[in-house]
Amino acid sequence: MSYETLLWNVDEDGIATLTLHRPDALNAFNVTMARELEDVFLHEAREDAVKAVVVTGTGKAFCAGMDLSAGGNVFGLDESIRPTPTQLRAHLTEAPYHDGIRDTGGRLTLAIHALPKPVIAAINGAAVGIGATMTLAMDIRLASTTARIGFVFGRLGIVPEACSSFFLPRIVGIQTALEWVYAADILTAEVAHAGRLVRSLHEPDDLLPAAYELARSFVVDRSPVALGLAKQLLYRNGAASEPLEAHLSDSLAMFYTSIGDGREGVAAFLEKRDPTFTGRASELPTIFEE
Amino acid sequence: MSYETLLWNVDEDGIATLTLHRPDALNAFNVTMARELEDVFLHEAREDAVKAVVVTGTGKAFCAGMDLSAGGNVFGLDESIRPTPTQLRAHLTEAPYHDGIRDTGGRLTLAIHALPKPVIAAINGAAVGIGATMTLAMDIRLASTTARIGFVFGRLGIVPEACSSFFLPRIVGIQTALEWVYAADILTAEVAHAGRLVRSLHEPDDLLPAAYELARSFVVDRSPVALGLAKQLLYRNGAASEPLEAHLSDSLAMFYTSIGDGREGVAAFLEKRDPTFTGRASELPTIFEE
Amino acid sequence: MSYETLLWNVDEDGIATLTLHRPDALNAFNVTMARELEDVFLHEAREDAVKAVVVTGTGKAFCAGMDLSAGGNVFGLDESIRPTPTQLRAHLTEAPYHDGIRDTGGRLTLAIHALPKPVIAAINGAAVGIGATMTLAMDIRLASTTARIGFVFGRLGIVPEACSSFFLPRIVGIQTALEWVYAADILTAEVAHAGRLVRSLHEPDDLLPAAYELARSFVVDRSPVALGLAKQLLYRNGAASEPLEAHLSDSLAMFYTSIGDGREGVAAFLEKRDPTFTGRASELPTIFEE
Repeated sequence: MSYETLLWNVDEDGIATLTLHRPDALNAFNVTMARELEDVFLHEAREDAVKAVVVTGTGKAFCAGMDLSAGGNVFGLDESIRPTPTQLRAHLTEAPYHDGIRDTGGRLTLAIHALPKPVIAAINGAAVGIGATMTLAMDIRLASTTARIGFVFGRLGIVPEACSSFFLPRIVGIQTALEWVYAADILTAEVAHAGRLVRSLHEPDDLLPAAYELARSFVVDRSPVALGLAKQLLYRNGAASEPLEAHLSDSLAMFYTSIGDGREGVAAFLEKRDPTFTGRASELPTIFEE
Repeated sequence: MSYETLLWNVDEDGIATLTLHRPDALNAFNVTMARELEDVFLHEAREDAVKAVVVTGTGKAFCAGMDLSAGGNVFGLDESIRPTPTQLRAHLTEAPYHDGIRDTGGRLTLAIHALPKPVIAAINGAAVGIGATMTLAMDIRLASTTARIGFVFGRLGIVPEACSSFFLPRIVGIQTALEWVYAADILTAEVAHAGRLVRSLHEPDDLLPAAYELARSFVVDRSPVALGLAKQLLYRNGAASEPLEAHLSDSLAMFYTSIGDGREGVAAFLEKRDPTFTGRASELPTIFEE
Repeated sequence: MSYETLLWNVDEDGIATLTLHRPDALNAFNVTMARELEDVFLHEAREDAVKAVVVTGTGKAFCAGMDLSAGGNVFGLDESIRPTPTQLRAHLTEAPYHDGIRDTGGRLTLAIHALPKPVIAAINGAAVGIGATMTLAMDIRLASTTARIGFVFGRLGIVPEACSSFFLPRIVGIQTALEWVYAADILTAEVAHAGRLVRSLHEPDDLLPAAYELARSFVVDRSPVALGLAKQLLYRNGAASEPLEAHLSDSLAMFYTSIGDGREGVAAFLEKRDPTFTGRASELPTIFEE
């Protein structure tokens, strides 16, 4: 698979590197990149050979945000419609890709979120606008000391998108989320780290090695089924209205892993050897009601 | 507009100062203050000339809590009824102001929460009981080093009110929220800051200037529509059950801001000039289904 | 009441100590302990003489996790069924104790969660697997500097259980929750404290005294009704979708406490004396709709 705006590589441990790659444009986000990123998370990254994904940017930037250089109707919106909430809800299942209403960044972050595998952002430089919000749907954010992160939407008269209002308060708390979105400033790596947006800071040359080490600690000798279900459980039940909802889903997840890879896991533990799991992320049992 | 228990002033940048003003009573909360505060947030603060609100107290206290000096039935409750949850739900739409059941503090915090503008608490001294819980519905809390904050309800045999059980865990996490409410102690400014309840600490004379500086950074050259929708998005989607809900609402908010103030915002950015936004907070598009 | 795997003691202040007690097995969790723990939280701890519960372990461990030494089908699952989410939901009300589907740890944490009294974990040593996740349903966690906490499920090919996916993100945030569950490592006390899982660290000999001091600060001269309702409010409304839901329930809780122990609380406050509350945790008013 070859992309115009991305690099995609999978190593022998199943750690994929997804590199935002528009070196002449600080990896700015455009319609092609949107389509290619969604494609990666909906298809390439779902291959069982891929165990985890590390996302970074080419050169000194992570992603400079929406490419506004074309000017005009950069969001590709169909202004002839004035949708209500109810009408938009209908569009979710009926409408084609660029339907003129749905937020493009949100289509991407929903695809990232739906991938039942660890996704790690290695923020190597400027991450602005959608360059910042796309990382919120990734599970863990590492950053270079040179990173700069900006939820700058307010300066353009628009709002944070890409489901960031779901993710940001859960990562940094509601007070910090409100301040950063209201201020619409560019945050230094230190501020982002102190606010718990970023898990850890690294010298530029140490960033990718740290991300790979973390990714490997998640996937080597691990069950892809257990990892994928754990991701679903934490996001879904972390947003559930009561513990009983968690009990329903984690009972099911425990049941299916116990009669699956859990049998090998317990046997290996008792026999003091490394386990050999055979479950596949592409065949997760259904633990949440639709 | 003149108030008995409050001072209200709006400066040339649209930054309103709301001062709790019962100087002989440490700005203690009573029925008049409740009515006047709700009036401010439902009416005065909704004027388009107001861009953000800073709330503080006259003298050395912020608000010493419910004024219990009258003794007796301080909560004005109608004890002839024993409402069930279902009956109370009906009262929400049917009942007049002091209906003898609904929590007065909650009427205030719902009004604060519904204001689509940044609200900043500048906690200049003691903030106890409703004096503490009213600040939780404000977006950001700054405090003087002399501030003291107390969720002291447990000492009176009552529970935290004013929707504080919604807001407090989202600000400080569930563990700290439980400890503070169980202990019912007066927290020092340092403890409140370490627990992330308070965004920053300031010397007494520096508190209001810091609050104004923060407020101005939110509103000068900003779209009131983008600010108001961002506030709605962060609170609503921060409490949503899944990212798809956020995608629905932020798609709509992005759509309406993109064809509104966002057009001017992008143009100004490309022309390297300050934007001139014309959107009004009093005319926000509807982005959440009722 | 005498238990095979537990010690249970209630002191003169109503502080109960629940000690996990399988000294030859690092207090590992087995079917007997599961049944006895659920029994304690559903019955013994609900006695009005009990005001708060401190949970700790005998010897150097808190709880070494599920006892896998029996090997085989350690989870007691009935593999002849392949339940769907809908079928499991039906089991919640219909099925007997060991129904072969429902997660045993979750039955315990639901019982802990439902107890309308403060529960404090005093983590005195290794807390692994269910030994870690059971503490998440306790309100506050103190730990010895020698504690080690491990969400190690991933190493066995299974998922975190016991409703931990509900509690953990609410305590430490979604990013840290994902990292700890993916990594499945044993955390030092310091890491657990820095990540806000643990409220405070103590020298081994100081741990239980600190837990008792905290428990006493919660319950001496306090209304058990106010405490119990506050616990319900913080967990339920901390997970509610909007503040209006909190307003409904805290209005009711405020109403019932105001005409109950709150009357004595206000009187005692005005008369500058200690209150004498008569409300009982076993007779809480209903503040949430079923």
